[in-house]
Amino acid sequence: MSKAAQDTRAKTQTENPVDELQARFADDMLAVNACILEKMDSHVPLIQQLATYLIAAGGKRIRPLLTLASTALHDGDMARAQYLATCVEFIHTATLLHDDVVDESEERRGQAAANTVFGNQASVLVGDFLFSRAFQLMVADGSLDVLRVLSEASAVIAQGEVMQLTTANNIETTMDDYLEVVSAKTAALFAAACEIGPIIAEEPPKAAQDMASFGMNLGIAFQIIDDALDYASSREKIGKTVGDDFREGKITAPVLFAMQHANEEEMVFWTRTLSDLNQTERDLKEAQNLIEKHEAIQKSKQLAEQYAQNALKDLSDIADHSIKNTLIDILDFTINREY
Amino acid sequence: MSKAAQDTRAKTQTENPVDELQARFADDMLAVNACILEKMDSHVPLIQQLATYLIAAGGKRIRPLLTLASTALHDGDMARAQYLATCVEFIHTATLLHDDVVDESEERRGQAAANTVFGNQASVLVGDFLFSRAFQLMVADGSLDVLRVLSEASAVIAQGEVMQLTTANNIETTMDDYLEVVSAKTAALFAAACEIGPIIAEEPPKAAQDMASFGMNLGIAFQIIDDALDYASSREKIGKTVGDDFREGKITAPVLFAMQHANEEEMVFWTRTLSDLNQTERDLKEAQNLIEKHEAIQKSKQLAEQYAQNALKDLSDIADHSIKNTLIDILDFTINREY
Repeated sequence: MSKAAQDTRAKTQTENPVDELQARFADDMLAVNACILEKMDSHVPLIQQLATYLIAAGGKRIRPLLTLASTALHDGDMARAQYLATCVEFIHTATLLHDDVVDESEERRGQAAANTVFGNQASVLVGDFLFSRAFQLMVADGSLDVLRVLSEASAVIAQGEVMQLTTANNIETTMDDYLEVVSAKTAALFAAACEIGPIIAEEPPKAAQDMASFGMNLGIAFQIIDDALDYASSREKIGKTVGDDFREGKITAPVLFAMQHANEEEMVFWTRTLSDLNQTERDLKEAQNLIEKHEAIQKSKQLAEQYAQNALKDLSDIADHSIKNTLIDILDFTINREY
Repeated sequence: MSKAAQDTRAKTQTENPVDELQARFADDMLAVNACILEKMDSHVPLIQQLATYLIAAGGKRIRPLLTLASTALHDGDMARAQYLATCVEFIHTATLLHDDVVDESEERRGQAAANTVFGNQASVLVGDFLFSRAFQLMVADGSLDVLRVLSEASAVIAQGEVMQLTTANNIETTMDDYLEVVSAKTAALFAAACEIGPIIAEEPPKAAQDMASFGMNLGIAFQIIDDALDYASSREKIGKTVGDDFREGKITAPVLFAMQHANEEEMVFWTRTLSDLNQTERDLKEAQNLIEKHEAIQKSKQLAEQYAQNALKDLSDIADHSIKNTLIDILDFTINREY
């Protein structure tokens, strides 16, 4: 590892630049949170209860932060950014609710998933409500461009999720298939969240395209690293769970790299564990060993780094700005994080 | 029954005026069906398969027909009406897909429900896709008014569905609760489908309000009769299933009227069967007997008739027009139909 990379790494391991964004946009995020609570309001008590539960669950709210940052970077109206950041978070929350039903998840961010507390029925329907409400808010904002960006992102996300149904437990999945799912499922909403900024600021289309591309590349890099960390034994040391994707038989970057040069015996292993979901307790350890043998974590990081490099290029037309620097720090952090 | 009513009835029993609309708008409906197929197109094979399955399942497509009729009645652009009728049908299909997951339905219109063929996961996600795609199409059409009407209807539908979760198996449900669920779950999309016509035709707001109110009243009348027919033993004669709502413990108009003057023993019966879902084979017959004893089918029809009367008034400002007459025939048919 180069000296510069080590410096970056030392820095990013101690401070997460997303926290920097949160500090910088603390007032805006308070407004976003107030807007979320206000607009989730419904006379139907169950919606209110589930909404409160989801808000309490928190999370870093990276997507609305990206909308705020992208708008501020282009000197757009921050009141509109707050309002539309709420739409972005509603769409994200709706997809999480439906995701948990589809994946039969029992936990999310270390607490019981909404579907296990309120039932699958409520999760499906409250997801639909949040989704519809997001579009109502966008209509009230009145920008057809924003409506276009977020309705397109929503359609792409749904298609990505359907495609993921067909790649799970399918060891014929190619790296291209995997990257298509990642682009659609995760990165499309990152892209849309970023694209809204220049649209609010009424910048020329090129600026919106650049920010959309930045969000897309950042989102892909983020998801590849997330998938790599699910096999990184170092993570166990800091008390994070590993192996969720393995247990569900998801075909992700580290597995795809490990399978690329796998021998026959190894393919028998992957078929049994991921395709047939016939797993014993020590199989995760064996999967981690094979991933180490084939340097699949490193290869995943290198792949993520390519997308981070592309994201960096997407910012090249933007003048120097402290927010631009923070976005670059986030790129560094995304690929170097160990949690 | 009055002579006039008998005449109406004799007429409506032999011909369904919805068929009249279908004949009148046959070319437009061909365009709508082509648009449905084209816009459901996705490179994800599972979406394509499920889309084809849903299209084949057919149905009367009453909602897109209402959009076509309402637009023609106000002399609006029929090409836009076809396009937006497709959005209405997509939203309807998305809610059906999610409904079947929520209700754990095994059949719809006498064929296996999509969730039993393709799984709940695909039904949730393809529903999300259709919903997003509907908004993409509306954005392409470019009317913020249409977007407002359909995003609001979607939010109302979702809230109505959540509310229905809390009224099912709950014999404390009031007639007001029931009517609120019916308004939201069924009638809101009828209202939106009708409201789009005057918007396309750029009529003044009053015309859109009248058509929205017409659709709302028609939708409520339609659903009340649908719920009454689920207990009508006459229906068994023509080979239709009865008792679905009873078996699921749904609290609908006929049950609410039967419970209004129920004695203690009858309340024990309703509590056991609808609230506890503890049913034996002959309980449906007993439920039908109690509903007959309390004239609950007639009372349901009278209630539906009030809404049909209101719907008729909603049309009063519209000049004579053959489509107006067909809509009035549909009102008559809706409350007098026996299937």
